[in-house]
Amino acid sequence: MSGERCFVLLWMAGDIVYVILVYDVNEKRVGKVLKKCRQYLNWVQNSVLEGEISDANYTKLTMELNKIINNEEDSVIIYNLRTTKYSTRQILGHERASTSTII
Amino acid sequence: MSGERCFVLLWMAGDIVYVILVYDVNEKRVGKVLKKCRQYLNWVQNSVLEGEISDANYTKLTMELNKIINNEEDSVIIYNLRTTKYSTRQILGHERASTSTII
Repeated sequence: MSGERCFVLLWMAGDIVYVILVYDVNEKRVGKVLKKCRQYLNWVQNSVLEGEISDANYTKLTMELNKIINNEEDSVIIYNLRTTKYSTRQILGHERASTSTII
Repeated sequence: MSGERCFVLLWMAGDIVYVILVYDVNEKRVGKVLKKCRQYLNWVQNSVLEGEISDANYTKLTMELNKIINNEEDSVIIYNLRTTKYSTRQILGHERASTSTII
């Protein structure tokens, strides 16, 4: 029973990752891309979102973004940090949004 | 001697970190901010730079950016990943620049 619980916890932990998403897309598609990203992540700055996301939703998000963007013109980078344990975030100037998961 | 070499290696490893920098600044200051960031990091996408940087240069960069930006209007976020060991990067669409340190 203890082993089973351990397995379930490990499986759950592996299922959630922490990502930073930055996009640089033609203004015609900015609205659609932002709307799609906001469904899964938190907006932190112009063209930047971040947050925890399940592996399943990560796959869903990338598939949906691939349908919206133009491969010749647009670019989206997703940094998968897996966890925030090894990262810190420093903000200079004005904080646009308050996401305090990374300290 | 072996202990000394070990200490030197640890000191060197601790001195370099990997960062992602994203900025959202008034267009009047975009040129200056970009120029300053490019002195230390690699441009990867509109308003996004990344790369290895020494602790000393990290401090220098943040001090210099603080002199350029307007605290009421501008925002710069620096994610300090320390190492790329725990991160991956996925690019959707067109790759703007070729920085292949994160796989």
